[in-house]
Amino acid sequence: MVSADNQQERLDSSWIVGFIDGEGCFHVAINRLPKMTLGWQVLPEFRVVQHQRDEVVLQKLKLFFGFGNVTVNHGDRKEFRVRGLENLNKLIKFFDKNPLRTSKQKNFEIFSKIISLMNKNEHLDREGLNKIAKLASKMNRKVTRSLESSETIRQNS
Amino acid sequence: MVSADNQQERLDSSWIVGFIDGEGCFHVAINRLPKMTLGWQVLPEFRVVQHQRDEVVLQKLKLFFGFGNVTVNHGDRKEFRVRGLENLNKLIKFFDKNPLRTSKQKNFEIFSKIISLMNKNEHLDREGLNKIAKLASKMNRKVTRSLESSETIRQNS
Repeated sequence: MVSADNQQERLDSSWIVGFIDGEGCFHVAINRLPKMTLGWQVLPEFRVVQHQRDEVVLQKLKLFFGFGNVTVNHGDRKEFRVRGLENLNKLIKFFDKNPLRTSKQKNFEIFSKIISLMNKNEHLDREGLNKIAKLASKMNRKVTRSLESSETIRQNS
Repeated sequence: MVSADNQQERLDSSWIVGFIDGEGCFHVAINRLPKMTLGWQVLPEFRVVQHQRDEVVLQKLKLFFGFGNVTVNHGDRKEFRVRGLENLNKLIKFFDKNPLRTSKQKNFEIFSKIISLMNKNEHLDREGLNKIAKLASKMNRKVTRSLESSETIRQNS
């Protein structure tokens, strides 16, 4: 574990927005999970992935936000990850106040809508879940697995 | 060509540093070029590559710095690129004043040393060229072609 506290000054909001415009990812997975009432789990998360040589920067992000975790992503890559509605709501407040400047802002806005539906527990009924799946399918084009799941929900509904 | 002037406010330094910590690349190519006195050309450049949907951000970088070009990188990717000693010296001034926060700072420092050698025309004699090749080989690990060239210079010197 690398300590971030003793590294230069802390990060500032504007740097963080720029860095996340480059490296951040808002993602909503919709996974088949038979033990859930509707058989699907909605898993929203935010992550920033870096080579392990830059783990210190991820620790600084955690320090700045005051929540989230730094963990292994894959191989020599680490990630700063935020999950859970309480923390994600705080993260959304930050980006409402400090908007992203790239097209990632559009993903953020969809992500924010999904979290707002989840705040009202709409992911727990079929109609809300479909709404979320539709929104999620408009997000990151790369995330095909969750899109496929979303398609499945829509086709079965 | 996408206009950046009519898009929201301009970028600020801190956002730019964050974005470039994520997406920027300092690169020195050393290419075989028989018509040069020593048979090698040193080509330093800085670039930021984005999907074409974010070309506006690249135009904003150009607007902010007041130099550089936005051009096609590859397929649907565009790049903001800075070449030429005069512009690269201005770019270095910016990052001297606004340091990068990731390990990219190390690449920048090497890049800056190389530009400083080139300012003194050291790339035009064999000794300086070897010095530059050695420095360049410590930069981006991904850029194997220029490293190979550098190795060749060292082995032949």
